[in-house]
Amino acid sequence: MTDSPMTAPAAPSASAGEVLSGYLTTQAGAFLRALPQAVGEAGSRPGSLPASAAGADDLLRAVRRIGGALHTFEAAFEPGWAGELRTELAWLLDLLGREPGYRRRSSRLLAALDSLSDTGADTPGMLAGHAGAPKARALLERQLTLARTRAHTALLQELRTARLHALADRMTLLSGEVPLLDAAAGRDGSVLTRQAAAALGALAAGTERLPLARAVQPYGGDGLHRLAVLPAARGASPVADADALLAADDEPWHRVRVLVKRARYALEVCAVPTAELDRLDEVLDRHRDASDAAATASTAARTPRITPATAYVLGVVHADQRLEVEAARYAFGHQWPKLPHHGWHEWATA
Amino acid sequence: MTDSPMTAPAAPSASAGEVLSGYLTTQAGAFLRALPQAVGEAGSRPGSLPASAAGADDLLRAVRRIGGALHTFEAAFEPGWAGELRTELAWLLDLLGREPGYRRRSSRLLAALDSLSDTGADTPGMLAGHAGAPKARALLERQLTLARTRAHTALLQELRTARLHALADRMTLLSGEVPLLDAAAGRDGSVLTRQAAAALGALAAGTERLPLARAVQPYGGDGLHRLAVLPAARGASPVADADALLAADDEPWHRVRVLVKRARYALEVCAVPTAELDRLDEVLDRHRDASDAAATASTAARTPRITPATAYVLGVVHADQRLEVEAARYAFGHQWPKLPHHGWHEWATA
Repeated sequence: MTDSPMTAPAAPSASAGEVLSGYLTTQAGAFLRALPQAVGEAGSRPGSLPASAAGADDLLRAVRRIGGALHTFEAAFEPGWAGELRTELAWLLDLLGREPGYRRRSSRLLAALDSLSDTGADTPGMLAGHAGAPKARALLERQLTLARTRAHTALLQELRTARLHALADRMTLLSGEVPLLDAAAGRDGSVLTRQAAAALGALAAGTERLPLARAVQPYGGDGLHRLAVLPAARGASPVADADALLAADDEPWHRVRVLVKRARYALEVCAVPTAELDRLDEVLDRHRDASDAAATASTAARTPRITPATAYVLGVVHADQRLEVEAARYAFGHQWPKLPHHGWHEWATA
Repeated sequence: MTDSPMTAPAAPSASAGEVLSGYLTTQAGAFLRALPQAVGEAGSRPGSLPASAAGADDLLRAVRRIGGALHTFEAAFEPGWAGELRTELAWLLDLLGREPGYRRRSSRLLAALDSLSDTGADTPGMLAGHAGAPKARALLERQLTLARTRAHTALLQELRTARLHALADRMTLLSGEVPLLDAAAGRDGSVLTRQAAAALGALAAGTERLPLARAVQPYGGDGLHRLAVLPAARGASPVADADALLAADDEPWHRVRVLVKRARYALEVCAVPTAELDRLDEVLDRHRDASDAAATASTAARTPRITPATAYVLGVVHADQRLEVEAARYAFGHQWPKLPHHGWHEWATA
């Protein structure tokens, strides 16, 4: 299954209600098809999941799109209903996302470590043959496997609760009929375009808070030196914790990542191509993955009783992943200005 | 004293011998003026040096220029004389360069560490408040102070030998008369331009061996991953040592640094402006300094009985300095193509 919109373009004359209903019933159907593949018959047969990683991906994809549509086009829905459903979708998104998140960290960190410590004849790395490299690799693998197992156990426990069943029931209802407000349902479809344009506007506003002028200077060292400090972190403590500072530095980028996804899904509802936003989304996913991996390396370096050689290698890996963070920001800073900034509305209606 | 040529442009009609004599007698005079300032009355009063860091800089500058001219315009000199003098100048260059080299490493590494561990409200670094930072700082400071003291002692010992006196005597002779070959002395000055063009050609050939296509891609990670391997290192051992691999990766860049300096001094002899080469020289000095600093951090991380926190911080600093290496290569890769590649001879005769 690809990332392309899963709804056919609505007829130009379609009302807002028809477009939203078409999109949401399709996504709810995708949710219901993916659910048993992703979590097995979790309620009835504990321990049988995940049946399929592809099923989990499809499930996450539907969850994100339904949540995005409920957010962007909230004026069309009964607020209580939409708010409750978004809360439940956010709960499932968090729950389902943890294990894949640890899997991504693991593959990224081990690949970085293998590349850095490669002794190959053609392209060795700066840790080639270093005694600490296999130790650091074993430590990271052990800690991330443990974290994944814990996330898996937590997922199993949560999926045995009635909460998932209740959400699946809501999705069954949604796949049949979308509870639209009467006033919104009959309106002209162009109201959706204006709401999608507002999502793009929110993205533009979020991006304006990023230090793009710094990010587009290659090797500005922003990922290592000169972190940004959020006002909240500024007042928190006289000597700030480095991990908290790095998290504060990344936070506005993570927020823009969410705004990019929302804008993508909003354009999808309006059947507008999203290729530019797909690329931005990929870059910010990479930014998030590198940021997570860097934090994992930093945490691993604080494990008691590790050898200095292990700690040294983890320091190199930490800096390497912060460099990847910087590279993703550089890429974002060069892609963003190429987007049609000054014509959000025109873009959404193109 | 600036880096500008210290000879007035020779008259257009000047012979090769007149131009070379003018340049070398001037530089030998600069050597003799700087020597007592740089080393004090080393022979007579041991322990009284260095009298002046500026004097040492002036001395190094004259030594490099005389050595460069003897190399580029070697056809004009009696080979035995020029070869011996170049050997003695290389000995003094190495001897005088060690202590400033350690001083540069020290200031670069401590500045990097202070920036990385800065807890300031505006621009903290990724090691802000890290417990290993002050320990790593103390370790680097101790090791580099020890290395500087040793270099200083070695310099003192060597300057008490007759070797420096003999070199000073040679310089006194050179400041009076340059021993040119009769055949070369009377030739038209344009022969020097052709020899300077050959020095520029050697620089172009050296630069062709650099991986510039990779270097100009920002965040290619070449300084950390994907090191180049020299044929010599390739066959050396099945599992190569990371420090040796990094040194092999840097070696062609260090060689080009020498070729840039030689080309600069050759153009100086011909009274041709060298602003472009001065900028390349600065970039490659930065490359060399970052490479040296990275190696120092890596060596310090192997000190027995350091804490894991100290080792971790040194790993970050090592990666940070390799990133500086990469940044210098990026800068070189962007400056080099702007030079008049295809008209070396035209440039030298401009």
